[in-house]
Amino acid sequence: MSGPLDELRARLAEGADLRRAAGVLGWEQRVTMPPRGTDARADQLATLGRIAHERFVDDEIGRLLDAAEPLVESLPFDSDDRSLVRVTRRDWEKARRVPTALREEMTREGARGHHAWVEARRANDFPSFLPYLRRNVELKRRYVECFEWSDSPYTPLLDDYEPGMLTTEVREVFAVLRPALTEIVASAPEVDASFLQGDFSPEDQRAFAERVVATLGFEGGAWRLDPTAHPFCTSFTNRDVRLTTRYHPDDLESVWSTLHEAGHGLYAHGIADSLLRTPLDTAPSLGVNESQSRTWENLVGRSRPFWEHWFEPLQETFPALRVVELDDFVRAINRAEPGLIRVDADETTYSLHIILRFELEQELLEGTVALEDLPEVWNARMKEFLGVDVPSDSDGVLQDVHWSGGGFGYFPTYALGNVISLQFWRVVRQALPDLDDQLAAGDALPLSDWLRDNLYSLGRKLTPKETIERLTGAPEIDPEPYLAYLRDKQAALVA
Amino acid sequence: MSGPLDELRARLAEGADLRRAAGVLGWEQRVTMPPRGTDARADQLATLGRIAHERFVDDEIGRLLDAAEPLVESLPFDSDDRSLVRVTRRDWEKARRVPTALREEMTREGARGHHAWVEARRANDFPSFLPYLRRNVELKRRYVECFEWSDSPYTPLLDDYEPGMLTTEVREVFAVLRPALTEIVASAPEVDASFLQGDFSPEDQRAFAERVVATLGFEGGAWRLDPTAHPFCTSFTNRDVRLTTRYHPDDLESVWSTLHEAGHGLYAHGIADSLLRTPLDTAPSLGVNESQSRTWENLVGRSRPFWEHWFEPLQETFPALRVVELDDFVRAINRAEPGLIRVDADETTYSLHIILRFELEQELLEGTVALEDLPEVWNARMKEFLGVDVPSDSDGVLQDVHWSGGGFGYFPTYALGNVISLQFWRVVRQALPDLDDQLAAGDALPLSDWLRDNLYSLGRKLTPKETIERLTGAPEIDPEPYLAYLRDKQAALVA
Repeated sequence: MSGPLDELRARLAEGADLRRAAGVLGWEQRVTMPPRGTDARADQLATLGRIAHERFVDDEIGRLLDAAEPLVESLPFDSDDRSLVRVTRRDWEKARRVPTALREEMTREGARGHHAWVEARRANDFPSFLPYLRRNVELKRRYVECFEWSDSPYTPLLDDYEPGMLTTEVREVFAVLRPALTEIVASAPEVDASFLQGDFSPEDQRAFAERVVATLGFEGGAWRLDPTAHPFCTSFTNRDVRLTTRYHPDDLESVWSTLHEAGHGLYAHGIADSLLRTPLDTAPSLGVNESQSRTWENLVGRSRPFWEHWFEPLQETFPALRVVELDDFVRAINRAEPGLIRVDADETTYSLHIILRFELEQELLEGTVALEDLPEVWNARMKEFLGVDVPSDSDGVLQDVHWSGGGFGYFPTYALGNVISLQFWRVVRQALPDLDDQLAAGDALPLSDWLRDNLYSLGRKLTPKETIERLTGAPEIDPEPYLAYLRDKQAALVA
Repeated sequence: MSGPLDELRARLAEGADLRRAAGVLGWEQRVTMPPRGTDARADQLATLGRIAHERFVDDEIGRLLDAAEPLVESLPFDSDDRSLVRVTRRDWEKARRVPTALREEMTREGARGHHAWVEARRANDFPSFLPYLRRNVELKRRYVECFEWSDSPYTPLLDDYEPGMLTTEVREVFAVLRPALTEIVASAPEVDASFLQGDFSPEDQRAFAERVVATLGFEGGAWRLDPTAHPFCTSFTNRDVRLTTRYHPDDLESVWSTLHEAGHGLYAHGIADSLLRTPLDTAPSLGVNESQSRTWENLVGRSRPFWEHWFEPLQETFPALRVVELDDFVRAINRAEPGLIRVDADETTYSLHIILRFELEQELLEGTVALEDLPEVWNARMKEFLGVDVPSDSDGVLQDVHWSGGGFGYFPTYALGNVISLQFWRVVRQALPDLDDQLAAGDALPLSDWLRDNLYSLGRKLTPKETIERLTGAPEIDPEPYLAYLRDKQAALVA
């Protein structure tokens, strides 16, 4: 009655449901949960994760894959069924390589490390965090040993977030980026952005953010935008997308933070219905996903055409901006200015923060930088890369959450997202010659529709490199469009 | 290393986590979910329910129970471990009696029936709902056949909500209630309550409700109150309690609706920590749980002492009430007035609505009332029980959601809750001789603490009747305190 493909789909649908259910619990924890619910929520999430994992690594999935593979091999490479079998095989083999005991230890030590980091950062006390960091690095070394790798022990970590990407490939891209970015930043003009600081009521910011998001291509009744401490985006199906943002009362960062999350959200919203409740119902990698948050935050949200439409509504919302000229506003939101904190960095300096972390992660993993020397090395590199002095570890090596929970290999995806966004953008501009006029008329739908049809709807059927090749004609990560964009931007600021 | 009791606890904790996770998904669906997320949420909830059920009815649970029973038999009857094993044995044997296929069919047909009911009620079209109702009744008959019963085929249905209760016991209680309530209602004086209708801003109602709830005994950071269409209460642990309510702009019903849900919430909040993540981390039955929502809504929330403290704050919030005397306000909120709709009924007429449904449910199950005659029988009984004419099926037989999803056996628990609330209240008043003064001073904590220590903390360790016996000294459901309370109240209205 039902073949192995149907049985496989049924099992994977259950796994997808468990994953999405955990997503609801995670969203709810960060948006609405009363604080004293924390411990119980952690138990619930651990149980959902453990059951989903147990069911996925089951031998029966392998038997179903064996039986399904001959049935799909004559289908087109990117057909739903053949993609499902291919991607599931890869996920399943990867998941089975890691012993349950190691996986659970990583989860436990990650949670401990996270708690220790919160306290260490608050108290500016790196030494108190050091033993937890050491433990997490040791576990990552044991994790790496579960896999075969050709170029670097870092590759299996990277592969968790950027499937199929080699460390050497990222190194090559970053080797081009680093000197070029340093040069762009060094020659960046000073720009007056003082009017971006002021008194901006959170309620008004919220109303403006909701108004903008509603025009980007989301269907009605299929999304919400809520305030939270650390903005993120998640979704529970392509018609239940959750954006979060934060509203500082003294700046307008919520505009770009919201556009950033909306970019992730549009990706989730554009996943083809046929991929729902499968492992393919998401983006191919963090980098490709990030390319779209960056597209909407920066390529759209810092462009002159976008603000030709939206600057007047913004001025109406915040009358203090009425004295500001559109050109001055656009210059201010495109300035480059080195700073201490990654999450506050502008789009030009941002990738330098990432390259610094990418290098350190490899060195920590290989033991060529000792963990106790990390603050010193961090501070020296910050001076070297960005020319800034680090006044305290809280604003230095302790600033990011990632390492505390064992999240090594994640950082490079942010910079890859920047790079990929421009590779795609070149294609977009060719396909949509009237894009600037459309954005200037407040019409983001042609862009949104094109990205949905050509990128978002593919989900995770193709690898990141296959996806890039599908859109651009070549699989390489090419930093040149990104650098050309930044150079043009800085030239325009001077002009 | 770990004995059968530890293994049993570990498995049950997983089940509790799945149940609570489903609770989060359910709350989120009713409070914050965008409407287009509905279908995916149904899939996710079905998967969580199926996995939890499969894991619970597993043979291994039976083996662990067999091994654990000798280990706990010398412990006190109400010790956590002995209660856990006893209650789990009962749940497990009951759950295994129902074939998976029947269970899934009931879930599916319940969902279909619910959709059909929403449409039928909207269109006042009972015939369109009839086939779904018929199907659900047939499935309930098959469900009943899975069990042995002594007095009535209705007992297995009742047992799902009121474990250990016999249909005959409920009949005896209702046989006393019905004529007595009819007499009380018939002699109830007319009371002016016109000032309870007016212009009451939902924001102000919300602020008032939050303010009251915060004084009832909840710890800070362990609850929230949100607006929703159909108020309910749920919890994800005893320190994450979710109250919901609704704010009509033209009346003050939110005050009592909120107190009602707060009563359920205080029960959840008072469950002993040692029972968390077990099947015992909830109330013993819907009736016992409802006794506490009724306690806080009615015995507290319609009492003169409570309003001696809260009427001034209410008048400050709604200045239109400044011309109303406290005595007139208390009379108005205690009046008895027959009406069409159960959920709008006052505490005196409410149980008559329930007795009508309890009788009809038995007749439908036994086939002594034909389904197609239901509207006619309903309308005749409404005239007989409450003296009201039913103008349409939407406000008659189609008014309640319960039957549409197959929820037969649930209704009587509401009336039992009323009855039990007064049995407990007699004990409370003996234990807390200064209760009126405390409430009049705005201090609900002595009451709240007493109920937590003597009732809520027990969780589901004892059956409903064992719980009643624990508090009152006798296991019977006794309607006399409830009737005496209503008679006193009506006498006070006349005086």
